[in-house]
Amino acid sequence: MQFEITKEFIKELSEAIVSGNDSFIVETLSPVHPADIAEVFEDLSVEDAKYIFKLLPEDTASDVLVELDEEVREEFLKSFTSKEIADQVDNMDTDDAADILQDLPEERKEHVLSQIEDLDQASNIKDLLTFDEDSAGGLMAKEFIRVSENWPVATCIKEMRRQALEQEIDNIYAIYVTDDTGKLLGTLSLKSLITASPRAKITDLYKSGVRSVTTDSRVEEVANIIDKYDLPAIPVIDKDGILVGRITFDDVVEIIKEEAEKDYQMASGISEKVESGDSIWVLSRARLPWLLIGLVGGILGSQIIGLYEDKIHIYPEMAFFIPLIAATGGNVGVQASAIVVQGLANNTLETNGIFAKLTKEFFVATLNALACTTLIFIYNLIIGQDLQLTITVSTALFSVIVFAGLFGTLIPLMLNKFKIDPAVATGPFITTLNDVFGLSLYFLIGTLLYF
Amino acid sequence: MQFEITKEFIKELSEAIVSGNDSFIVETLSPVHPADIAEVFEDLSVEDAKYIFKLLPEDTASDVLVELDEEVREEFLKSFTSKEIADQVDNMDTDDAADILQDLPEERKEHVLSQIEDLDQASNIKDLLTFDEDSAGGLMAKEFIRVSENWPVATCIKEMRRQALEQEIDNIYAIYVTDDTGKLLGTLSLKSLITASPRAKITDLYKSGVRSVTTDSRVEEVANIIDKYDLPAIPVIDKDGILVGRITFDDVVEIIKEEAEKDYQMASGISEKVESGDSIWVLSRARLPWLLIGLVGGILGSQIIGLYEDKIHIYPEMAFFIPLIAATGGNVGVQASAIVVQGLANNTLETNGIFAKLTKEFFVATLNALACTTLIFIYNLIIGQDLQLTITVSTALFSVIVFAGLFGTLIPLMLNKFKIDPAVATGPFITTLNDVFGLSLYFLIGTLLYF
Repeated sequence: MQFEITKEFIKELSEAIVSGNDSFIVETLSPVHPADIAEVFEDLSVEDAKYIFKLLPEDTASDVLVELDEEVREEFLKSFTSKEIADQVDNMDTDDAADILQDLPEERKEHVLSQIEDLDQASNIKDLLTFDEDSAGGLMAKEFIRVSENWPVATCIKEMRRQALEQEIDNIYAIYVTDDTGKLLGTLSLKSLITASPRAKITDLYKSGVRSVTTDSRVEEVANIIDKYDLPAIPVIDKDGILVGRITFDDVVEIIKEEAEKDYQMASGISEKVESGDSIWVLSRARLPWLLIGLVGGILGSQIIGLYEDKIHIYPEMAFFIPLIAATGGNVGVQASAIVVQGLANNTLETNGIFAKLTKEFFVATLNALACTTLIFIYNLIIGQDLQLTITVSTALFSVIVFAGLFGTLIPLMLNKFKIDPAVATGPFITTLNDVFGLSLYFLIGTLLYF
Repeated sequence: MQFEITKEFIKELSEAIVSGNDSFIVETLSPVHPADIAEVFEDLSVEDAKYIFKLLPEDTASDVLVELDEEVREEFLKSFTSKEIADQVDNMDTDDAADILQDLPEERKEHVLSQIEDLDQASNIKDLLTFDEDSAGGLMAKEFIRVSENWPVATCIKEMRRQALEQEIDNIYAIYVTDDTGKLLGTLSLKSLITASPRAKITDLYKSGVRSVTTDSRVEEVANIIDKYDLPAIPVIDKDGILVGRITFDDVVEIIKEEAEKDYQMASGISEKVESGDSIWVLSRARLPWLLIGLVGGILGSQIIGLYEDKIHIYPEMAFFIPLIAATGGNVGVQASAIVVQGLANNTLETNGIFAKLTKEFFVATLNALACTTLIFIYNLIIGQDLQLTITVSTALFSVIVFAGLFGTLIPLMLNKFKIDPAVATGPFITTLNDVFGLSLYFLIGTLLYF
């Protein structure tokens, strides 16, 4: 049931553009969802996309603009006059309109705003632009259905009709009930609306104590609430409790996905949000910081090993297991920290103390250490490795696994306590730390047991 | 606005349980959302939770059961008789009821099913249990509002009312229009319903060509569609086009989160979905496989270095940079593969060939390699390192970064081509591969330039 963009489809469209076969284009795209047309645009040149864009029905065109990938849209809009952009955002929901204007250069933004024909729409967008992008105010839309507690059901339905038409609301996720000053009192469910008598008063039907957020709530908090309570939409109030907007689940799905991607990239050693389509320069820049941390770790490692140069001269076989010790320490550290970071991110981590978590990790790591150490011990016996070296390597491996697990657990918990994003502690950071630590331990144990 | 569970709150509840102060418990919890009560339960002993559970109003109790974490619920339900469970699932939406029964032992499941009083509910649940858990059929609920294309608006509203009451539907996300055989024709928006005259026919009002999935659609596909087209709910049809259920956005949010967590854990070297609250045994088991892969890598590494034992004997300083080379190779590999894996997961990766992606990665990695190599070269000059070793280390580092980047890009793309989850190529797997490869390259270059 999902629309698939094939090479043939793109080729046919391109040919139709060249030959000016407009009716073919219109016909082909008429059953296609704006989200899919946006994807088609991403596979075309800006000129070709613009050619098709002009053929689309007004509402479809602005929906496509909303669905376009941010970078593609920025490029695309460069070829638009301010008036053209103004006509498009006039058609959009206020939250989408504000998002698009947000990305325009300051001067251009003002120019576009001044050319929006519907003055209400312009003032609503202007208002939304005053909020921080990462706050509920920056995320909300001004379109919502609002009814008064004092109305009977019949008036309510008439008013809903008027508001839905006037504001061009396609999906009504909630009906908000306010008092006469606009203060949010609760929500009216569709079910109670259609099961009530037309003369019943809203005040007897609505559900009070509804969950809401304020304009300055953080988007992550909004996402958590919508997700936890399975809400299709949440009302946004100002500091006086006046209903000023609403946020829908689809905005929140984006936030949840972005958060997850951010953590994933952080764990993979990528320092800014990038996509495979970004430029070579952006991709390199995002990867360099963690590589440099790794580099520093490597240099520290070289200095630690350097301290034992004389020993390696005599016992070069000590060098054989350097990668094993370093890599295992890194792996265990990442595993332990990932579980903590994920637990903190989705609030599943119990609220009890750090000590209990470290104790648990001690047992988890010890179990793993036992398994790995036994295997490496047996391996070394089988290949006939020197027994003293075998004991040294096994002891070091055991210690490194246990300590790396404890570090991996402790560091994100500490960062979180100091209000630093614990996700920075995953990936290369913890790997590097444990590399260095593991090497020190290895040679220290070597000095005690082997050299 | 989010409910916060404090230690004091838990303490007060525990004390009330001990002293049998039931009215305090009922009063305290009455404004608390079932999702929050479920979290409270997770902080209490099974006995205390059960004590409170019995005091909750019927509907709240079953909602709490639905919201409980799977493992906690399993434990919790062990203390229930089959009849008690049957009474609870009788109260639930069919999808939630099926999820809970799914987790029960086979014999118990049958026993519970036979004791559900509402025979319709029992047969609906039984039907849902026949579907694969990872299919749309396994995810859908049987509760939905269905109207006939032949009805006038007035009949439609009357019927909606009846269905909403009978099926206890709290949130109406969509009104589905079918023909007389039950075949899905489209959806009726609340907006068109309230803006139409009571005598208008549904057939003139509904939107046809609505997006739907079939019972055997994969849940990931369902999640993609709901996310892409911002749908609050999607209808599920059988192979004949008959409407059999619906899936709502909140189920999909769970899937999206789980997918993201799975990829994150895979990248962190954790082989099964775990949470910080899982048992020591489960956590150890989930971490061991990747540690063993790392162990094999470490052993291979030791054998490679072993080949050069004589050389290290003469040039122990070659050992200094083993961790640097190995760690950098691992880091670059993870970075490159993470971007590919994420691009594949969210469909942002362009459809052009593997060669173009490798070329791009070549340039990205080369830029990073230039930066890192220059730094390590300068560092070695400053500390007065032997020039030949400096050149050897720099050359090896450069080559390792470029090759690790290419491997990291190529391997997930190849896996994806062979329909293997590319996420397995991230984390320890790619790290280990690049560790081993980097070491070989380092000593090979050493042989050519240094020894």
